[in-house]
Amino acid sequence: MEKISFGKKGLIPAIIQDIDTGKVLMLGYMNEKAWEETLRTGKVHFWSRSRQKLWLKGETSGHFLLVKEIWIDCDEDTLLIKVKPVSGVCHTGHYSCFYRQWNGKEKRWEEKEKKIFSPEEVYGKGD
Amino acid sequence: MEKISFGKKGLIPAIIQDIDTGKVLMLGYMNEKAWEETLRTGKVHFWSRSRQKLWLKGETSGHFLLVKEIWIDCDEDTLLIKVKPVSGVCHTGHYSCFYRQWNGKEKRWEEKEKKIFSPEEVYGKGD
Repeated sequence: MEKISFGKKGLIPAIIQDIDTGKVLMLGYMNEKAWEETLRTGKVHFWSRSRQKLWLKGETSGHFLLVKEIWIDCDEDTLLIKVKPVSGVCHTGHYSCFYRQWNGKEKRWEEKEKKIFSPEEVYGKGD
Repeated sequence: MEKISFGKKGLIPAIIQDIDTGKVLMLGYMNEKAWEETLRTGKVHFWSRSRQKLWLKGETSGHFLLVKEIWIDCDEDTLLIKVKPVSGVCHTGHYSCFYRQWNGKEKRWEEKEKKIFSPEEVYGKGD
């Protein structure tokens, strides 16, 4: 049987990693339905906490996350999903949502990665 | 100024990645104090949700996570910390907490990684 702890709110965090580059792309949250749809379709689905609905990542942009491997942690309360991303995953136009690095000397976040697509062209509304 | 969203519970999830191998090692949660101690000491601190206390990762085992880079996501509600791990990070004795992979055919989690240390020898009690 699959053992997953969806937590008090029925959600489990899922770390998304590019299987080819090893880059961590984003963190999303799945409920049971999102988990089932991810397995059924091979495309990552989340539960959108802001929109309170099932969210096929890429439904607006076409930037789907194609599932290659799924791992679970020791406590069964976090998923690691290795994917092939169709294109950049971030709604800002960046390849990864982690495009800002902590600058310890200046005590500020510093943008380190360039955009790889134009969010205005790709999205009508968010993704 | 540092902009971080610690969420309703005062916690932000922090993905821990080995800077050399690219392996994702674990997911932990930081409160503001853990964040400050991580910056101050260069060793990852979490808020232990199970023990409800500040947790220097490695305080029992010596398996510290030495901070090399810190990244934040677009929404400022997830951290990605690249580290040099002193040894395996998982309380089970594995290098990574993600040592089990989903077997889609058999619909079960399958252990894929071997233990690299004996948890009985390393821990008095958990870490």
